[in-house]
Amino acid sequence: MKLICDGLDLSDAVLKVSKALPAKTPNPVLEGIKIKAEGDKLIITATDTELTITKSIKADVLMEGEAVVVGRYFMDFVKKLEKEQVELSRLYDGQLQIKYSDSESELQVYPVESYPVVKKDNDENFFEIKGEELKDVVEKTVLACSTDDSRPILKGVLMEANGDELTAVSLDGFRMSVVKKEIKGSGAFKAIIPARTLNELVRLIEKDDETVSVRLQKNTLFAVIDDTEIYSRLIEGEFVKYSHIIPTGFENSLTVNKDALLSSLERATIVAKNDRYNVVKFEIKEGVMTVSAKSEVGYVTENVPITLSGKDVTIAFNGKYLTEYLRIVKDSHVSLNLNSPIDPCILTPVGKDDFIYLVLPVRING
Amino acid sequence: MKLICDGLDLSDAVLKVSKALPAKTPNPVLEGIKIKAEGDKLIITATDTELTITKSIKADVLMEGEAVVVGRYFMDFVKKLEKEQVELSRLYDGQLQIKYSDSESELQVYPVESYPVVKKDNDENFFEIKGEELKDVVEKTVLACSTDDSRPILKGVLMEANGDELTAVSLDGFRMSVVKKEIKGSGAFKAIIPARTLNELVRLIEKDDETVSVRLQKNTLFAVIDDTEIYSRLIEGEFVKYSHIIPTGFENSLTVNKDALLSSLERATIVAKNDRYNVVKFEIKEGVMTVSAKSEVGYVTENVPITLSGKDVTIAFNGKYLTEYLRIVKDSHVSLNLNSPIDPCILTPVGKDDFIYLVLPVRING
Repeated sequence: MKLICDGLDLSDAVLKVSKALPAKTPNPVLEGIKIKAEGDKLIITATDTELTITKSIKADVLMEGEAVVVGRYFMDFVKKLEKEQVELSRLYDGQLQIKYSDSESELQVYPVESYPVVKKDNDENFFEIKGEELKDVVEKTVLACSTDDSRPILKGVLMEANGDELTAVSLDGFRMSVVKKEIKGSGAFKAIIPARTLNELVRLIEKDDETVSVRLQKNTLFAVIDDTEIYSRLIEGEFVKYSHIIPTGFENSLTVNKDALLSSLERATIVAKNDRYNVVKFEIKEGVMTVSAKSEVGYVTENVPITLSGKDVTIAFNGKYLTEYLRIVKDSHVSLNLNSPIDPCILTPVGKDDFIYLVLPVRING
Repeated sequence: MKLICDGLDLSDAVLKVSKALPAKTPNPVLEGIKIKAEGDKLIITATDTELTITKSIKADVLMEGEAVVVGRYFMDFVKKLEKEQVELSRLYDGQLQIKYSDSESELQVYPVESYPVVKKDNDENFFEIKGEELKDVVEKTVLACSTDDSRPILKGVLMEANGDELTAVSLDGFRMSVVKKEIKGSGAFKAIIPARTLNELVRLIEKDDETVSVRLQKNTLFAVIDDTEIYSRLIEGEFVKYSHIIPTGFENSLTVNKDALLSSLERATIVAKNDRYNVVKFEIKEGVMTVSAKSEVGYVTENVPITLSGKDVTIAFNGKYLTEYLRIVKDSHVSLNLNSPIDPCILTPVGKDDFIYLVLPVRING
């Protein structure tokens, strides 16, 4: 293997794929980054076997071939070569030689044979979406994913695409997020995608208007953004039947300024966070909602102006679930729709139904 | 106690003094922030007994008085009140009441009597310096302070001021930094100031051209920046006699481009950091210096152009000590002055003697 490439391209690509390097692994070869010179490209790959990221950059290939080089050191090293033209070659003793300016270095390699190979398969189904739209869907759903290993299915987002609509759903047993989004085109796509994969996928989006192609290959997700490819295992199993959880009618419906409610909730949560459930109480009356929290460090009472349609009601929530939601809402006003103090509450930006957020209340005494 | 103040002023002041809150303390009252309404001011204080930071802000004082409020919660809380006018009052049951807009809260307090009082004494000696000049001195000296508790005196910077010159010295047994700086005016000031105090002091400088007054009061440092006061214990004992450590003549002297040397050293250190001493070897010849490092992950050889006056020599250093120094040098070229491979080496920006950095070499075989 022998090739010449641009230091900045190389550094950028290695940094991108490095997100798939495992934090800890019993298999040392996974600490490596694979580089492969082929045609007029250098293809760079890292994997922890769950998630694989591959990026191609332009290269002047003098001899085709491949090597698996120690990942962290290679990453640190190429970061310091951004201003140089870099020549990479595999030496007869196996080491990777790196030449630049008037200097040269060698890094240790792993045997290429033991590096896992991602099997490409035929695409079954797919959807295409603009970068900024995918970012938006992921932000709104990953929020409500569980981090608890006991129910793996809740650590992912169910994505279903058909025709020109994508529906994404996540829930953790206390709250649920349902997002709908117009997409460019799709087959009959249905998969539960791990939250981590989605987070890494959106981090690889550089331009808001670039198209992301999300494809299914048996039990693997295969997404393409420009010169970057990402492969990920999907979460297997049957997702929770969620549609019947969403109430269809409400006795009470109120409208509130999002920033005002968020500020009050943030202050209340400071006091409430002393408590395991971050209990924040809402006393809802026409014209004003009193948001309060109490713990051994003190108490907070906030009056937030609202418009109410329905009757007075007192209900409590885990403050964290509401602040996390309000922080990602871009609209100026939100609707809060509820029935009794023990029934789920639905939040939506006013007048919209493409982002439904459901929260279960907390029971309070009295 | 009762007063009204601006939320942004309050939040800014509490954030500033909070740097003196102890990370862990067996004395709960030190987790508090003291607020005192007096005249037309609110005086806010935090301390871990080693370091005390006090800041005054303008306030409309309706009733003088003081309270010690739970620190972390108060800090989080006022951060969320930046847009409000805030009314603070001590209630009859002792709690601190916080009123803003249409809302109110209460936070728990500690007994004021048990909060430590900083004793003000008469100033003995002092110096005055411009903010940006002090930042520069601290950056160049704290670098070489020891972090080892076994020799507490090396965890501080010796500062001596007389007339219009300040000399600051730090050393950790492997390297030493000596900085000279013109100052506005001084008495005969001499003290060993803890590195942590200096780091916090420069963080409190908001404008480069504001004057910092640094004063001695027996065993206490007392520094003033605008409305902020900082008190700190000094390190007691006799500082190392450092002047005889600096060699006076050199057999070899070379000039090198700072950025070129830093880039090469950074790459060499990536490979060398696998080793406890980060050994980087320098083979110095007229015209070129070969910088190299070797470990089980690979090896690096870099050729850096130099101008040498003296004879060829091979010497090795802990790469970390040199990269840390080169990262803070602002000049384009540095001089490296040395005698034998076992004598200390002196680095200075070319043609300047107001920042002398001394490094001991590492012995290598062969």
